[in-house]
Amino acid sequence: VVDADRLDRNLERWQAYCDRVDLRSRPHVKTHKCVEIARRQVQLGAAGLTCQKLGEAETMVDAGFDDVLVPYNIVGAAKLERLAQLLERATIAVSVDDASLLPGLDRAASRSGRQLRVLVDCDTGLGRTGVARPDDAGALATEIVRHESLHFGGFVTYPALPAAREFLGAAAAGAERAGLEVDVVSAGGTPAMWSAGELRPVVGEYRVGTYAFHDRATVAAGAATLDEVAMTVAATVVSRPGDRRAVLDAGSKSLTSDLAPSPGHGVILEAPSSTIVRLNEEHAYVELADGESLELGQQVRVVPNHACTVSNLFDEFVVVRDGDVVDRWRVDARGRSR
Amino acid sequence: VVDADRLDRNLERWQAYCDRVDLRSRPHVKTHKCVEIARRQVQLGAAGLTCQKLGEAETMVDAGFDDVLVPYNIVGAAKLERLAQLLERATIAVSVDDASLLPGLDRAASRSGRQLRVLVDCDTGLGRTGVARPDDAGALATEIVRHESLHFGGFVTYPALPAAREFLGAAAAGAERAGLEVDVVSAGGTPAMWSAGELRPVVGEYRVGTYAFHDRATVAAGAATLDEVAMTVAATVVSRPGDRRAVLDAGSKSLTSDLAPSPGHGVILEAPSSTIVRLNEEHAYVELADGESLELGQQVRVVPNHACTVSNLFDEFVVVRDGDVVDRWRVDARGRSR
Repeated sequence: VVDADRLDRNLERWQAYCDRVDLRSRPHVKTHKCVEIARRQVQLGAAGLTCQKLGEAETMVDAGFDDVLVPYNIVGAAKLERLAQLLERATIAVSVDDASLLPGLDRAASRSGRQLRVLVDCDTGLGRTGVARPDDAGALATEIVRHESLHFGGFVTYPALPAAREFLGAAAAGAERAGLEVDVVSAGGTPAMWSAGELRPVVGEYRVGTYAFHDRATVAAGAATLDEVAMTVAATVVSRPGDRRAVLDAGSKSLTSDLAPSPGHGVILEAPSSTIVRLNEEHAYVELADGESLELGQQVRVVPNHACTVSNLFDEFVVVRDGDVVDRWRVDARGRSR
Repeated sequence: VVDADRLDRNLERWQAYCDRVDLRSRPHVKTHKCVEIARRQVQLGAAGLTCQKLGEAETMVDAGFDDVLVPYNIVGAAKLERLAQLLERATIAVSVDDASLLPGLDRAASRSGRQLRVLVDCDTGLGRTGVARPDDAGALATEIVRHESLHFGGFVTYPALPAAREFLGAAAAGAERAGLEVDVVSAGGTPAMWSAGELRPVVGEYRVGTYAFHDRATVAAGAATLDEVAMTVAATVVSRPGDRRAVLDAGSKSLTSDLAPSPGHGVILEAPSSTIVRLNEEHAYVELADGESLELGQQVRVVPNHACTVSNLFDEFVVVRDGDVVDRWRVDARGRSR
């Protein structure tokens, strides 16, 4: 269930912040995978979209969006062919963390007859993908420009940990010393979104996804309050097997098993101090807090731990305003994890 | 990716076991949500299907299956209307653990003009739904038969823990003393499937789901070996950010965050001693074991922790025999968690 007014407020508030601190916003569609919401984000002033997989980018380009960043190593013949096809239709940027991937990207771009923007993926502390040192980032940038169909697009990192600013500043300075223009330095992450301005002027673009909906994790991180959460899972109390126990008909196939913040698998708005202690696929086990109760048959709303993985389980959002259902929006890129 | 030969062997071996120990098999479609696989299960001799939600049952009845057990409390006007519509088209059984649900079920059955089979859900140790004592189970059975359009169908439990046999035997004896016929006592669960015969003669029907594919959890439980696993997730090594680190393009949107057995989010068949230590939505973080390596760009197969939640993320299975793709099967009931 998506509360359209809360969604709009979330999108507007973030865009206003970006305008104020002079950051470009490039929202991440992985959270909602929904063309209708992406449209609102761009109408408000987003500089383009971020997609985590080519499948999401294909959905968004099909819908008419023309500027998509896929901050991901695109590896293998099948994906490179899809990238070439996308590039014929839109402005696409990707990231790399390994020079050995550049010849494949160059051939894909060459086939499409377009230049491909390639950003250097920087590991500024997460320990996932990315080059580990600013010098390596600069060196990879100089490798990119040796390929005829590749355009060096700047640097990208996730999330914006405290160390990111120094790392990215050093990488950008190194690239500029080598005579390269740094189009953009892009950081991201909803938990720290409200201090994104402190990354200026090194960082010029910021990517957030969860900010559209918020969830139990971003509320715990202090990025939003519970009454700003725009997406909930509607569930029904299907069993009351004991005085302090209730069971909901939403399990790991509705709420996912994403367990952060722990303990608990979401907040039941009608019993916010109670704990969803365990999930099976189609059951949530609730331990009721003192003073809270749930009736057999009662409908409840659950704020999930992690909105992005929950959206991916559903074919559509039920859209409400002031408690009334006003629309249904397709989760257009649901399941597009290729 | 589904290995059709392994799937067929898994289905055949279980049906042969059931035939030998005189158990009716009622396989659970929640694992595969796939009409093609359900058809194979019934062709081999399954007595009917088990669905965990009405949405799955609707898919299977649409496909022509005519005997479905939904071992779930059906609560609320919307679900009861859907149940009535299903009942017009097929033999449906549901379970209950609370007498207050019976009038709604009775009205739904009456609207359809058919009898609804209702089993008593028994909590034999899991602590989820179900009545907690055999006496309560018998009492609820006598409540069921007071409703004109309801037929007492027996007792159902999950899983078949050691205490289940005694509990179910006492419940059945109580019902029989009250003059009720016990059509079936139904237990289930893949981990203990190969000792299901020991529940005879109290238990007459057994429900397994994961047995079709198996996964890291049922292998850890001793119900299968790794080379009997019939469903894997194909992934690509997209980054090698360090000597002992690799990143796959399969994350929590492909493997789910289901974390049992812990630690690790699946077995990489090409690096079985290595550990998937962490998932983001589209990344798996691999810590490589000594003596194991993965090349950038290499395709790998991952045995997920939990097959049932993984199927639910994909629109289709890619079906292989001897390593060649021979078919694609729709995951027909994907996302039908209502």
